[in-house]
Amino acid sequence: MNNLGIVKRTVRRADATAVDKLARFGVATVHEAMGRVGLMKPYMRPIYTGAHVCGTAVTILLQPGDNWMMHVAAEQLREGDVVVAACTSDCEDGFFGDLLATSFRARGARGLVIDAGVRDVKNLTAMQFPVFSRAINPKGTIKATLGSVNIPVVCAGALVHPGDVVLADDDGVVVVPAEFAQQAADAAEARERREVDKRAKLAAGVLGLDMYEMRETLEKAGLKYLD
Amino acid sequence: MNNLGIVKRTVRRADATAVDKLARFGVATVHEAMGRVGLMKPYMRPIYTGAHVCGTAVTILLQPGDNWMMHVAAEQLREGDVVVAACTSDCEDGFFGDLLATSFRARGARGLVIDAGVRDVKNLTAMQFPVFSRAINPKGTIKATLGSVNIPVVCAGALVHPGDVVLADDDGVVVVPAEFAQQAADAAEARERREVDKRAKLAAGVLGLDMYEMRETLEKAGLKYLD
Amino acid sequence: MNNLGIVKRTVRRADATAVDKLARFGVATVHEAMGRVGLMKPYMRPIYTGAHVCGTAVTILLQPGDNWMMHVAAEQLREGDVVVAACTSDCEDGFFGDLLATSFRARGARGLVIDAGVRDVKNLTAMQFPVFSRAINPKGTIKATLGSVNIPVVCAGALVHPGDVVLADDDGVVVVPAEFAQQAADAAEARERREVDKRAKLAAGVLGLDMYEMRETLEKAGLKYLD
Amino acid sequence: MNNLGIVKRTVRRADATAVDKLARFGVATVHEAMGRVGLMKPYMRPIYTGAHVCGTAVTILLQPGDNWMMHVAAEQLREGDVVVAACTSDCEDGFFGDLLATSFRARGARGLVIDAGVRDVKNLTAMQFPVFSRAINPKGTIKATLGSVNIPVVCAGALVHPGDVVLADDDGVVVVPAEFAQQAADAAEARERREVDKRAKLAAGVLGLDMYEMRETLEKAGLKYLD
Amino acid sequence: MNNLGIVKRTVRRADATAVDKLARFGVATVHEAMGRVGLMKPYMRPIYTGAHVCGTAVTILLQPGDNWMMHVAAEQLREGDVVVAACTSDCEDGFFGDLLATSFRARGARGLVIDAGVRDVKNLTAMQFPVFSRAINPKGTIKATLGSVNIPVVCAGALVHPGDVVLADDDGVVVVPAEFAQQAADAAEARERREVDKRAKLAAGVLGLDMYEMRETLEKAGLKYLD
Amino acid sequence: MNNLGIVKRTVRRADATAVDKLARFGVATVHEAMGRVGLMKPYMRPIYTGAHVCGTAVTILLQPGDNWMMHVAAEQLREGDVVVAACTSDCEDGFFGDLLATSFRARGARGLVIDAGVRDVKNLTAMQFPVFSRAINPKGTIKATLGSVNIPVVCAGALVHPGDVVLADDDGVVVVPAEFAQQAADAAEARERREVDKRAKLAAGVLGLDMYEMRETLEKAGLKYLD
Repeated sequence: MNNLGIVKRTVRRADATAVDKLARFGVATVHEAMGRVGLMKPYMRPIYTGAHVCGTAVTILLQPGDNWMMHVAAEQLREGDVVVAACTSDCEDGFFGDLLATSFRARGARGLVIDAGVRDVKNLTAMQFPVFSRAINPKGTIKATLGSVNIPVVCAGALVHPGDVVLADDDGVVVVPAEFAQQAADAAEARERREVDKRAKLAAGVLGLDMYEMRETLEKAGLKYLD
Repeated sequence: MNNLGIVKRTVRRADATAVDKLARFGVATVHEAMGRVGLMKPYMRPIYTGAHVCGTAVTILLQPGDNWMMHVAAEQLREGDVVVAACTSDCEDGFFGDLLATSFRARGARGLVIDAGVRDVKNLTAMQFPVFSRAINPKGTIKATLGSVNIPVVCAGALVHPGDVVLADDDGVVVVPAEFAQQAADAAEARERREVDKRAKLAAGVLGLDMYEMRETLEKAGLKYLD
Repeated sequence: MNNLGIVKRTVRRADATAVDKLARFGVATVHEAMGRVGLMKPYMRPIYTGAHVCGTAVTILLQPGDNWMMHVAAEQLREGDVVVAACTSDCEDGFFGDLLATSFRARGARGLVIDAGVRDVKNLTAMQFPVFSRAINPKGTIKATLGSVNIPVVCAGALVHPGDVVLADDDGVVVVPAEFAQQAADAAEARERREVDKRAKLAAGVLGLDMYEMRETLEKAGLKYLD
Repeated sequence: MNNLGIVKRTVRRADATAVDKLARFGVATVHEAMGRVGLMKPYMRPIYTGAHVCGTAVTILLQPGDNWMMHVAAEQLREGDVVVAACTSDCEDGFFGDLLATSFRARGARGLVIDAGVRDVKNLTAMQFPVFSRAINPKGTIKATLGSVNIPVVCAGALVHPGDVVLADDDGVVVVPAEFAQQAADAAEARERREVDKRAKLAAGVLGLDMYEMRETLEKAGLKYLD
Repeated sequence: MNNLGIVKRTVRRADATAVDKLARFGVATVHEAMGRVGLMKPYMRPIYTGAHVCGTAVTILLQPGDNWMMHVAAEQLREGDVVVAACTSDCEDGFFGDLLATSFRARGARGLVIDAGVRDVKNLTAMQFPVFSRAINPKGTIKATLGSVNIPVVCAGALVHPGDVVLADDDGVVVVPAEFAQQAADAAEARERREVDKRAKLAAGVLGLDMYEMRETLEKAGLKYLD
Repeated sequence: MNNLGIVKRTVRRADATAVDKLARFGVATVHEAMGRVGLMKPYMRPIYTGAHVCGTAVTILLQPGDNWMMHVAAEQLREGDVVVAACTSDCEDGFFGDLLATSFRARGARGLVIDAGVRDVKNLTAMQFPVFSRAINPKGTIKATLGSVNIPVVCAGALVHPGDVVLADDDGVVVVPAEFAQQAADAAEARERREVDKRAKLAAGVLGLDMYEMRETLEKAGLKYLD
């Protein structure tokens, strides 16, 4: 039953074309396109304004105060991956800094999403290495206890399987299961196209009340206008 | 007793000249000038550095996870308004994004203050549409339950009546009752004038201890200097 | 037993050369160099990106909602000091703004670290006066109750003695006891030198697994690779 | 505009018979009967299991770390009142203990609802003096700054006018505007009566799906049953 | 990709004998026996001291402020089930009270684990219906939007599949995957047996240092004893 | 500079008679008697109602997720001690359960104060072993990294030296420096004596306004009574 101490080497990554297409859309759009599922909790924030990343998940399950598995994960990275790190209990230590970022980037990683703390944010920003975390913390970690790499993890409330698409921007982080990557990208594209027209109408002063034909439903629901 | 399902169309907005004058001062200054009342809780933060807004409140009472009333409120907006949205229970969903911002702006709104979450912050920043919120969250909302528009609401701990002046900047958000707008603006102006002189003295090395004549009071209170 | 109502005028400040040397390193580096001690809690954040300060602590123990001791502390400042303010109970009022910053700077202070709230952040940013705080809040304070100046305080979970070195950057805040300032600076320098080489190797694609010789230990700990 | 430093001696208290009737119902029932308004935030908790209170509000606006107004309020109490204390900024100091409880009870108060901390909870429990607070904290307060008594306050997110009915039990705290006290009591009674029958049906195994006739609406909404 | 609007009727429940055996052990013991996995976050607390439940999960995915799916789930309950309710976004409304508890019990449920709020806790306690929740809140909910029943959910950070064993007591909540129920129960039993002997030795004054033979490892790790 | 990996065997414990005397008073009383210093943060709560402990501190500095030092500390315990455990970073794992309680009690400990989580609370309650913690959590810990025993620690915001008196009850936790134990006990006794008389007066309906002669000061401060 124990899922600790395991490194899964084979990962079925989402299709690269679908990942690239998803990268063109915002997190809010993709989340809507998927039917409003797959979001991480809103406490996950970028370490610098404008951080943006999209790639296939290499997952890590960390132990509190211990980043040993980060090094194990580095070897499993491929071009286009995003590291997704969860922890067995809430811990805001700084599990990750610019040395690991240098290593991850050299091995192909596009960024990091971690339900814990990170440090060296000035250097990470200078490197433009996108990181989404729950905290910034100079507190270092040890390397003493086994976690796992590339098992399914719950990260900031979202279930992530290795190979899933992880998309993060200023709004937050969304996870797209690998098998739905193409479908989600297509739905996001369709949604974005529809919004162009809506935006133009709203900019021209048309009301959502009319554009979405809400007046009748509101009246039925009992809305009363008073002077 | 129920205040849900109501849209008040007539709002006594604060005097436009007073609003414009208040817009020249910082939130901290106005809060002091009013006798230290009217602040929202400090968890209300701008979505981008430098966001600043001052206008008359159009209020919304939202239901958790439901932004239907946003569309109803759009119709009630006039040039110079700021939308103030409270929720019947704590909810950090993303009730507002760039489409609604486009609509609100087209109808005259200067910004949004919302005790909940918003999304599309990259676009909102590009639009320079000032938003002050408790969270950023890509999670969308539904349109199913009635709240109200232009009733008095408690937003982030502050009571806001429709038509009150709402002023927000990097420090936070303050509410000025419509009937006190001119008085508050004048008091803020007077306060700011007095600070110019103080600032010069302090910059020259004069101590607050001397400038404010605190030494005697401190001694009476029992302050002891040790070497 | 009571430590309230006291101003200690004589402070044994850390050696200035050591302070200047420490100023060249990041908080994470110094924290590591000291053996991973001395950090404040990660809720302490800079009020603007890039804020950085290093200096000798003048400490203040504040009462909730009362910044009287700020003015008392101003007189005790010397060139190169950093004000470190703790509070007898958690309070996020705005204890500090641009007037006090002007005074502190005129008296030699390099910045402020405060386990409470501050205001006027727009002006403080324009002044480039570095402040690290737990909150931003326009709410003002009174001047009615004695606290103390230059007694040992617990600030954001860290024990600070007057004269200790306080170093703060985008990662957080670390306290170096005055007597260890030189030793910590030397250790930080040594650590940073070692990292140059490591960074180069990692950038070239060498794995931490190999560079730190972790493979054997991981195997002993029971790590299993699956396909 | 300033509402500090004021004691309002005349309070229009809710009708005593209506208060007594409301006292028979739970907070959840009254909240529902009123149309789901009037609740304080759920962080307000009783200091002992089973605490229950219903009475007319005498309101206090406190300053952080200062309970002076508690003593001022004691003189304004009448038989059947409940003290409702808000604070100008978030503060969890212990503003209230068994001495004040003794005084309040002697002057007619039935309990306390305070958006701050209290202490002496062992004695308060022994006295069976019901208190609902956001924190328990031995930290004492001073008596130095004016707040107000019997002005409208926002307490834990709810607007409370002096004389309103305040009802609190293990579920939380609800405020009933004085003018709606009788109406709310009647509605609560009606609601409770209806629930007797529902409870019996549900206990017999009838499903809410059938009792509330939800099946058709669920199907229309698109609910799909899979095997 | 959308998992909303679905009710799965067929659930592979964990073996009843294994469930009954697991019910004899504490959450901490089972969590250890499983290799330290499967816990919900520690903010999940029982609504009354001594609450204890063990059963097979019927899962619900709720929408914020909407408990419609609770009624849908009632029909899917069998003798020995525990309802596990997650929400698509953080919401502390009171989704559950004594009427639903009456219905759930009548349909065979042993208790509720909900990552949201509940109400009527006095009655629920009188019924001895065990509930573990993140909040207590009298605020009611609506019935307007589809969620799902018996899909895999992430509840308070733990992944729960329908049919998994859910065990909760004063320490917290643990989830045992259905296929490991027997194995976990056996491991828990073995662990508890071993603890009897340890407890006796420790009670007699034997040190863990000796019983677990830690002295040598501590010395190797560099522990220094000073006088 | 490093204070990790150290066990101090010699502790100057507070005088036993003073400790016994302090044990007779509540935390709020002792805190007041000391001049309002020495409190831990109010998030420290007893694991059962009525828990009460007073003794001399044996301190532990733990690493996150690691309770190794608990076993090292057990050997340093003497009759009358209270274990005070801090952690190098915030961690709510369950560092302590009934086995360690059995060991601690057998070695003379009266209770535990820990700025982290504990588990087995049902058994700890049955043992009536008083524990004050920030969390309850079944999550276990490892034994891999050195912390320290009997060094000064900051626990929940309070500085604790080995040998200091630690007093905890339903209100919270207060630390009395060993050298002030007798003085604090005497001051607490004097304070409690004075309160007897005050309580009688207040119970008879005398107002604090009169008993503490506040009316003149309030008037000077500008308090206004309105009808």
